[in-house]
Formats: sequence, C-alpha cells, structure tokens
Amino acid sequence: MKQASSGFGNLSRRSLVSTFAALPVLFGPLRSISASAQGTDPLPSWNDGATKQSITNFVTQVTTQGSPDFVPADERIATFDNDGTLWCEQPMYVQMAFILERVKALAPMHPEWKTKQPFQAVLDNDLRALAASGEKGLVELMAATHAGMTSEEFTKIVSDWLAAARDPRFKRPYTELVYQPMLEVLGFLRANGFRTFIVSGGGIEFMRPWAGRIYGIPPEQVMGSSIKTKFELRDGRPVLFRLPEINFIDDGPGKPVGINAHIGARPIAAFGNSDGDLQMLQWATLSGGRCFGLIVHHTDAEREYAYDRQSPIGKLDKALDAATANKWTVVDMKKDWKRIFPFA
Amino acid sequence: MKQASSGFGNLSRRSLVSTFAALPVLFGPLRSISASAQGTDPLPSWNDGATKQSITNFVTQVTTQGSPDFVPADERIATFDNDGTLWCEQPMYVQMAFILERVKALAPMHPEWKTKQPFQAVLDNDLRALAASGEKGLVELMAATHAGMTSEEFTKIVSDWLAAARDPRFKRPYTELVYQPMLEVLGFLRANGFRTFIVSGGGIEFMRPWAGRIYGIPPEQVMGSSIKTKFELRDGRPVLFRLPEINFIDDGPGKPVGINAHIGARPIAAFGNSDGDLQMLQWATLSGGRCFGLIVHHTDAEREYAYDRQSPIGKLDKALDAATANKWTVVDMKKDWKRIFPFA
Repeated sequence: MKQASSGFGNLSRRSLVSTFAALPVLFGPLRSISASAQGTDPLPSWNDGATKQSITNFVTQVTTQGSPDFVPADERIATFDNDGTLWCEQPMYVQMAFILERVKALAPMHPEWKTKQPFQAVLDNDLRALAASGEKGLVELMAATHAGMTSEEFTKIVSDWLAAARDPRFKRPYTELVYQPMLEVLGFLRANGFRTFIVSGGGIEFMRPWAGRIYGIPPEQVMGSSIKTKFELRDGRPVLFRLPEINFIDDGPGKPVGINAHIGARPIAAFGNSDGDLQMLQWATLSGGRCFGLIVHHTDAEREYAYDRQSPIGKLDKALDAATANKWTVVDMKKDWKRIFPFA
Repeated sequence: MKQASSGFGNLSRRSLVSTFAALPVLFGPLRSISASAQGTDPLPSWNDGATKQSITNFVTQVTTQGSPDFVPADERIATFDNDGTLWCEQPMYVQMAFILERVKALAPMHPEWKTKQPFQAVLDNDLRALAASGEKGLVELMAATHAGMTSEEFTKIVSDWLAAARDPRFKRPYTELVYQPMLEVLGFLRANGFRTFIVSGGGIEFMRPWAGRIYGIPPEQVMGSSIKTKFELRDGRPVLFRLPEINFIDDGPGKPVGINAHIGARPIAAFGNSDGDLQMLQWATLSGGRCFGLIVHHTDAEREYAYDRQSPIGKLDKALDAATANKWTVVDMKKDWKRIFPFA
C-alpha cells in the first residue's frame, strides 16, 4: 500500500489510483469514430498546423513501404492514457464520482455510516472531513464500493451508474465527455494498421465495459489498475470475487511494467497528459527507431479546463519539461482543437 | 510466497511455478502450422473417432450462421496450457532444465557456489542434496538465473540457451518437442476465426520469444507466471530490470484470474493436461453457452510418456475426474494421435 498523502483534495494522481484499483462499466450514447470516412482529412477536428502535421507525418513515415522509417504492421502499437487524454478528468476523476455516489446509494443498507468516517463525510457532503480521512479513508471507500462482489456484478453496477450519472458542468453522461480529436486519432491509427491500447491509472474493470463502444478498443486492449480477484465455484458456477486488496497500480513507472506484462512489445507511439504518463512516453520513445510521443495540454478553460503544473488532478510538470527535451508533440487544446467533445 | 513442499523431486506443479516466475526465450527450427492447408482434413495427425469429432463438431457449431450455438468471431477465444499440452514437460519442465544448465554456465563467475547450497548440488549433479534444499533452494536458483538483468537481456539469455540445448531423450531442441496434433488444433481454430492464447504456469518471458514462431501466437496472447520488474532509465535509455520477487502465479485458480485480467472475456474453449488447468477449464465451460474443454491424457510411454494421477510433474487427477463429470474431451494420446511430434 502506498504512503498516505496529505488529504483528499491533494491526493496525487498516484495515491489516488493506488486506492482506485479495477472497476468495470458503462453506458451512454454511441459515438462513431469515423475519421477515415470523413473524406480526405482523417483528423477534421484538428486545426491545421505543426501539431496536426506531426501526427500525420509520423503515420505516413511508418506506413510507407520503402521509407527508412517503415514499421511492419505487427509492430504498430500505440498506447493511450485515458483520464485527461481520451476523456475529461475534471473536476474529479469519473471513478471518484462513482465512489461518492455509490456510497450514497449504498447508505440505506449501512445505517452505521451516518456516524462513521469517512462515510459520514460523503453522506454529509463534508469535503473537509473527507479530506481529513486521507488515503486511509479513500481505501475504505474503495473497499466498500469496489470489492465484495463478483466481477460480473461489478460490471453491472458500474454500467447502471454510468447510464444514469451526469457530469456536473456539462450535464451529460460521462461517456459523452470524450475528446473528439482523440477519437479521430484512434481511428486514424487503426485505419493505418495500428493496434490501439488504453494504459490507464484508472480501474481496468471500470473501463472495459464501455471502451469498446466509445473508443473502439476491445477489453483485451485495455490495461489499468486492479484489485485482486479470487476464483470460486458457487453452486457449481465459476465466478471471480473482488477482494479489498490492491493488485497493480498502472501509473507512472507502473505503465511500462504493465505494457510489457500485457503486450510483450514496446509501443512506437504513446499519448498522455500528465506526469503519470511520463515513463510510458519514455518507454515508447527513448529506445531508438521512429517513434511518437504526444502530450495533451489542457489550455482551454472556456470549452473544457485549463491546468498543468499545479493541478492536484492531472498534474503536468515533469512530463511537460520532458516533452520539450524529447521533442514530443504538445497539444495546445485551445489552439489545436476545433472541437473538444463530439456534441460540441 | 507459497508453502514449501517436501522437496525438489516432489515439487508440485503449483509450488514449482511459484518459484518459476517469468522467463523469456527460444530458438529452434521453424514448424509450420498448416492445418488448414492440408486438403480437406484440418486435423490430419488425429485418428478418426469421437475425440477428433468432438473438436470438429464444436468448431462447426459455433461458426455456422443460424446455428443455435453460433458464436460471433469476436467471442471465439480459446486458451491453451503450454507444458504437457502444447509441448513435452517430461522428464522435467524445460524451464527447470534451463535453471540447472544456467547455474552451471554461471558457475565460473561464482566460485563460492562450489561450497554453497543449493548451487553445489546443481554443480555436483547431486539430486538428493538438491531435493533437500526444498523450495527455498529453488527460489535461490530462480533468483540467480531469472533476476538481476533487464528483460531484453533475459530474452537473449533464454534464446541463446534454447538454440543450443537438447532434450536428453530425443536429442532435439526443446522447441521441436511440440505436439503436431495440437499445432493443427491451433491452426484449425484460427482458420475459423478464433483467437488463441497461451495460459501457462511457466514464465511468460520464457515463452514469448518463441511462441510466435513455433505456435503462431504473438506475445500479447501469451500469459504466464511472472516476477516483478522495475522501470529504470540507464544513461537515458529505458529498461525493465528483473527483480527476484514473484509477481503472479498463473496456475490453478490463478489461470481464470489471469485470463480475466489479460483478456477481459471468458474463453469458450480451453485445453489443458493437468490439475493446474482445472479452474481454467471450469471457467471456460461451466457458465452456460456452447463451450469446449479438452484434456490431453499422456498414455503413450513408447512415443512420449505415460503419466497421470501419481506424477510429480503434470499431475492429472482431479481434472481427470472433472473431465468425466463435465463431459470434457479426454485425448488418449496413444489411441488418438497418429503422430506426436512434427519430426516423427
């Protein structure tokens, strides 16, 4: 277990995910990823310029037979962070919203929570008390909301929640708060023989149920943090029971570890937005050969959010410096993206 | 860490793999898996009869549009154990042969091993002393041979070893001791839209380097036991360093856990040969829907080996009873297989 950080409001990305192992779910409106079907421009939601061109140049070079940078289709692997890279992570991780709302939904079955922290803080919307409960409190909330059921049951819980939940600012299902320009990148890469993987600090079973429908990414190409599960036969029927114990933290230096365990090959392209993605981008880009690294920089407070070096969620500091040093593409969301979300 | 078993000779499958986390490697002659190219019979090395027919019937039923048992291609997932199911596991696991030979190769750099157990036992070929060192000894041998290098370096070590190593009975590279009838099953399934995965108690990085060439299975479809790795930048170059610490034991009840973590979907067909595969077969076959379970029963001492309920390696006892109870196909190697190996 990680060391406790100073509190809920300051929970670092890493300490948050350490309590955030493996969820499953979702539900929401279909979004087509039809980049390759939109005429000649595979990236219509990107403004023309160096950023967009860096993407199309890379893809052209690695897919052109005879090019010195040609990469066989088998080796065209691209990895994507999820929170803040493919969908919105503000004002809090979606998985955190799930935890808080789930505690409220379960409260009638737990009358003792009315006077027991950290549950009382959640029920009273007392953010100060919640923060005071620290990582220990968050671990208890995780155990109460993410463990104690089968994987199948958890998938249904998350799916049902996502069908009903709405983002507080945009008043839409969270699955609509995905970045249209990034959906186009996913489609463009796949149309060019890439396999696209999610490598998220969030829970693997929180993402798998909807990643196929929303991103076109099947469960076996979704990696994330996880809790331990236990195989059992119940009345002769096999189930996996979710235990209140961290299994793997797929964040920071855990990302290349997870990528190697899962894929067994090095990506040639990696996409992230925070310091939690630094090592994944290093792994993909610092080993020689044609490769591509991209950082989404949230610069648009009007259409989405603006945050970087000081943000408690999605802190982008070391990775922003590394982007300059390593010539990774940095997306200026405000300048480079015509549209942010599919609906606007 | 698992409880120690009684000794080296008696090491159960589970306790052996608990010390056997993640290796990589190999090298050996190409073997084509050309089942679907051999005229009308996709399984030419199988004798006609109920066993062969159970395989072809299953594949026909799940791939026939309009059949009540039709399964969409996306969901056609088949999982295979490796040791004893796809290649020979007698007289000892190949990975164990690697450990013993690797200790001998490293001995000149470790003069202290001459008088230090369990290394002395290996160098003296003293199987009694080796057995006496128990699981603790095996863990030390693992640490000395599997950890302390990068994943890339380990891959090369295993590859070089496999290129030179020979099986003591057949005098051939271990990668030739794969079962021709099972290669045909792999090819037959893939020709019918299945994705084929290895789910082995053996080391994931011991298998990945050659599974593509020998079985047609890419690294991302190979699961196995693993040790922990650590991400590091060395002179600006990213590496994964192998640590002497177990990460995951992909055996017994660990197999469905690993399958869920890696694939995120339930297989509809599973192939194994020992009690270590029991839960994988239960996971694949006891949840309703058309499914297929198969156990390779080693009954041919003349052409390969004969062993089951009493064998310290590849013990087949509970899973043999479960096969009857659950109507899994049991391959009688002697009766059902025309050929065992590609070379004979």
